Amino acid sequence: MALAEFELIRQYFNTAELTFPRPGIVLGPGDDCALLAVPADSHLAMSMDTLNAGVHFPVDADAAELAQRCLRVNLSDLAAMGAEPLGFTLSLSLPEVSASWLQGFSQGLAACASHYQCSLVGGDTTRGPLAITIQVHGLVPAGQALRRTGAQLGDGIYVTGTLGDAALALPYLTQQPGFELSALNLADQQALHAAFYRPDARLDAGMALRGLASAAIDISDGLASDLLHVLQASAGARAAPGAVIDSATLPVSDVFARLVGGSDRLAMALGGGDDYELCVTVPPRHEARAQAAVQALGIAFTRIGEVVADSGIMVRDSGGACQPLTLTGYRHFGNQDNE
Amino acid sequence: MALAEFELIRQYFNTAELTFPRPGIVLGPGDDCALLAVPADSHLAMSMDTLNAGVHFPVDADAAELAQRCLRVNLSDLAAMGAEPLGFTLSLSLPEVSASWLQGFSQGLAACASHYQCSLVGGDTTRGPLAITIQVHGLVPAGQALRRTGAQLGDGIYVTGTLGDAALALPYLTQQPGFELSALNLADQQALHAAFYRPDARLDAGMALRGLASAAIDISDGLASDLLHVLQASAGARAAPGAVIDSATLPVSDVFARLVGGSDRLAMALGGGDDYELCVTVPPRHEARAQAAVQALGIAFTRIGEVVADSGIMVRDSGGACQPLTLTGYRHFGNQDNE
Repeated sequence: MALAEFELIRQYFNTAELTFPRPGIVLGPGDDCALLAVPADSHLAMSMDTLNAGVHFPVDADAAELAQRCLRVNLSDLAAMGAEPLGFTLSLSLPEVSASWLQGFSQGLAACASHYQCSLVGGDTTRGPLAITIQVHGLVPAGQALRRTGAQLGDGIYVTGTLGDAALALPYLTQQPGFELSALNLADQQALHAAFYRPDARLDAGMALRGLASAAIDISDGLASDLLHVLQASAGARAAPGAVIDSATLPVSDVFARLVGGSDRLAMALGGGDDYELCVTVPPRHEARAQAAVQALGIAFTRIGEVVADSGIMVRDSGGACQPLTLTGYRHFGNQDNE
Repeated sequence: MALAEFELIRQYFNTAELTFPRPGIVLGPGDDCALLAVPADSHLAMSMDTLNAGVHFPVDADAAELAQRCLRVNLSDLAAMGAEPLGFTLSLSLPEVSASWLQGFSQGLAACASHYQCSLVGGDTTRGPLAITIQVHGLVPAGQALRRTGAQLGDGIYVTGTLGDAALALPYLTQQPGFELSALNLADQQALHAAFYRPDARLDAGMALRGLASAAIDISDGLASDLLHVLQASAGARAAPGAVIDSATLPVSDVFARLVGGSDRLAMALGGGDDYELCVTVPPRHEARAQAAVQALGIAFTRIGEVVADSGIMVRDSGGACQPLTLTGYRHFGNQDNE
């Protein structure tokens, strides 16, 4: 960046709304490193994600909405560990420096940072194709992090919120033929927009499930893919366990129920990516407490099946008949990708 | 990434050479977050940098060399804080998945990670224009981090190693007209290659200077630019101090002395970027100890001037005559950038 551009960028990111103080942040942006203090009884949880223009979001995405999505997607990983947000770093690659874009991006980022109490502590800004890398950092009591590895036979499988909304939104937001956003009513338009750009990071649910859930993951690739990650990680020395999913229990939103035809529902709810809901397993002895703890937060928490001995995922219909699920991997926006 | 590509990537990065255990790394790659433990008497220092193809390195750069450079550039920020490396995260955006490129990149990364005892703890791999984001994490005793803010009038200004080698290397490595690498002898070719791709991260020097240096920065934009950052950060409530640099003392390498003409020497040593040496200020009462401590490590540590009251940078020639320095900002490879 030229010096004037660098100053412009600094002006938008070095603000009280973005770089606010938090206990544990010893030093924020402006030096060679940021400095964090971590209490002796806690661990620092951290996760990094990159979103590239044209791969993870439309090139012409609104800057404020894009900022929200980038930070929320990362915070979702903290939620899946049961960690409490502390601070984040941001690396922004920009093809050109636009004051209006920077203003929108920083405002969206600040709104999200403030909402989740996660302060900007450092990062990098550089020239390049539009790309956003964020690393989030949070605290979790030592030994209480929710891992992917603890699922046991007989555990209940739960998801927060509703499934498939982001997958439903994608063809509308990218203006695919047959998916005219303007043909929907305003409330539905807004719901689909929010599902893609402002997924709720389920941080409170993650923290409430410490000591109750046996395993957790956030749903980025699609429920079926991510549940398989949990089952495989939980294999230990034996074969990976499997799951039976009750198709009738899969929670979907009103807009999803109205817009998605019967034959597509299961595929989108199980296979659609970008939900950023939590999928957790809960031992039977903790199920009642876990349900009460999450529902007390006003967050839907639905039992969708259980962990079983046979590997893979079976789908059970309302009549009790089981069929093995054939996975279709998640595809990124505009690409044959699932990561 | 398609699933098979994702597995291939995992195979190259999930290796014992890259993800080795270190005290303080509670959980490495493979879950939603990595987990670090930080001793109660220490702070976690962290820094993030992105390198984009065609901006920060040639698109056809050797993968192993590129990996070395990316990690070393980041470790240099830990050095400038006086921190000891612990672990790093990596986000890799790839336009295509090439096994030979991944093998080279992971081998270069592992060699560097092992050399500096900094283990890979997590990250992201995704489709996109070739770009590498690394965040490094290190430990520094609480209150002993080297900041940019502590330079005082009368402090000596020191640099490690030699200056200008990376700036000298750049036109050769990018095959600019008049800069034929093949016209140089093999030792010079290797020296220039190493200067750009394998800068020494001055971690031992940074740690040795805890409690002795009053301020520190690593030289990425060029000595003059980075020294100005220190002086401005040290201003406090008063006007920023300045510096007098003795041009005859600026340390340069043999190859630099032979290849760079007299009129270019000062501009390249003071203005050339990518040196990744440390520039530190040392109060007079600590100068002897600081010199002894760094030189005991076998690292050149040269006094190049001192902090003065008048703002800006003055260059003093061997006759004692002073002239104000006119800054030419650092330009990234192939771009009119200085960040």
